[in-house]
Amino acid sequence: MPPVERLGAYTREEFINRVVAFHGFAAPGVIIGGIMVDLAIQQMPRSVLYDAICETPFCLPDAVQLLTPCTTGNGWLKVINLGRFAVTLYDKHTGKGIRVYLDPGKVQDWDEIQAWFLKLKPKTSQDAGRLQGQIWEAGPGICASQPVKVQPLYLAPRSKGPIGICSRCREAYPVKDGDVCLGCQGKSPYAEPVTRQA
Amino acid sequence: MPPVERLGAYTREEFINRVVAFHGFAAPGVIIGGIMVDLAIQQMPRSVLYDAICETPFCLPDAVQLLTPCTTGNGWLKVINLGRFAVTLYDKHTGKGIRVYLDPGKVQDWDEIQAWFLKLKPKTSQDAGRLQGQIWEAGPGICASQPVKVQPLYLAPRSKGPIGICSRCREAYPVKDGDVCLGCQGKSPYAEPVTRQA
Repeated sequence: MPPVERLGAYTREEFINRVVAFHGFAAPGVIIGGIMVDLAIQQMPRSVLYDAICETPFCLPDAVQLLTPCTTGNGWLKVINLGRFAVTLYDKHTGKGIRVYLDPGKVQDWDEIQAWFLKLKPKTSQDAGRLQGQIWEAGPGICASQPVKVQPLYLAPRSKGPIGICSRCREAYPVKDGDVCLGCQGKSPYAEPVTRQA
Repeated sequence: MPPVERLGAYTREEFINRVVAFHGFAAPGVIIGGIMVDLAIQQMPRSVLYDAICETPFCLPDAVQLLTPCTTGNGWLKVINLGRFAVTLYDKHTGKGIRVYLDPGKVQDWDEIQAWFLKLKPKTSQDAGRLQGQIWEAGPGICASQPVKVQPLYLAPRSKGPIGICSRCREAYPVKDGDVCLGCQGKSPYAEPVTRQA
């Protein structure tokens, strides 16, 4: 298999520049993620409107957001943390899709990728340049694809339902959440009681 | 308060173009979100490295991803769904930060924003142009800010811990998840048993 030269509309260099601008640095996980997302796109019928699932919150979601119309805020990208480096694109009506994962068996042929993927050596001992070189060389050769069908639960358009005003914090919230909002039910991530303020 | 003319490095038009390119369309929630994120940034000390929390998965996460270094994939943006239209930027070391929310009390002065925010009329009856006009006019005037302190739990750098190979699916997974990966523990979103494939 020839080395990867392009991802979607981007050359290698253009993609790296976009990764740095968006993700903050040229993370190996976003570059491998880009190769995986590109491989999944190529296997989806062209006319299909697809949503995406990432099975890890690490890196991969940013590859999806850079190469597909799916983002966290538009709801077409969902992160379901199963701890696996895998991404699925699926028809948002039928649930039929393609799952692409990084295959530990195939990664064995690339020592620097394997060391990164399985955390065989500390980050400070990794050779970032060599790792990136191996990623472009290996390309889809270290990935595997499989057809999947996403459960109906994940196909329904997301909806907040009717909105009310929380009697405690006076903010708007989905009334289906209960008598008061989830924040006032103790689910808030803040350490101190939050006081209302202008 | 004068109408908003700029958000971060962008003019109104540039920001709208970026919203359309990233989010897919000029969603009112991403534009209001942009105003909220900008307001939070202005209240953070300049030298602070901050993380972000969105209290809703709707729209707001994309405003954060467009205007800050925080993304889903780099882990600096967390969505904690409390159903409230609120965003917090906080010092990733101390947890001290600023929470900005859309204030239902202040929104009362802007009928089109109020109708959108509280879902008082169906989307098809909303006047998108008038709504966007009111958003730029109202600006930070419909928001409220409050200091918060994020719980220590959210400050620890995320880590997968040691990686193993799942004895069932043969994929890499964090061994802290159990004897087999979470996907093989029945948490997979796929309807059919997934077969391994090249």
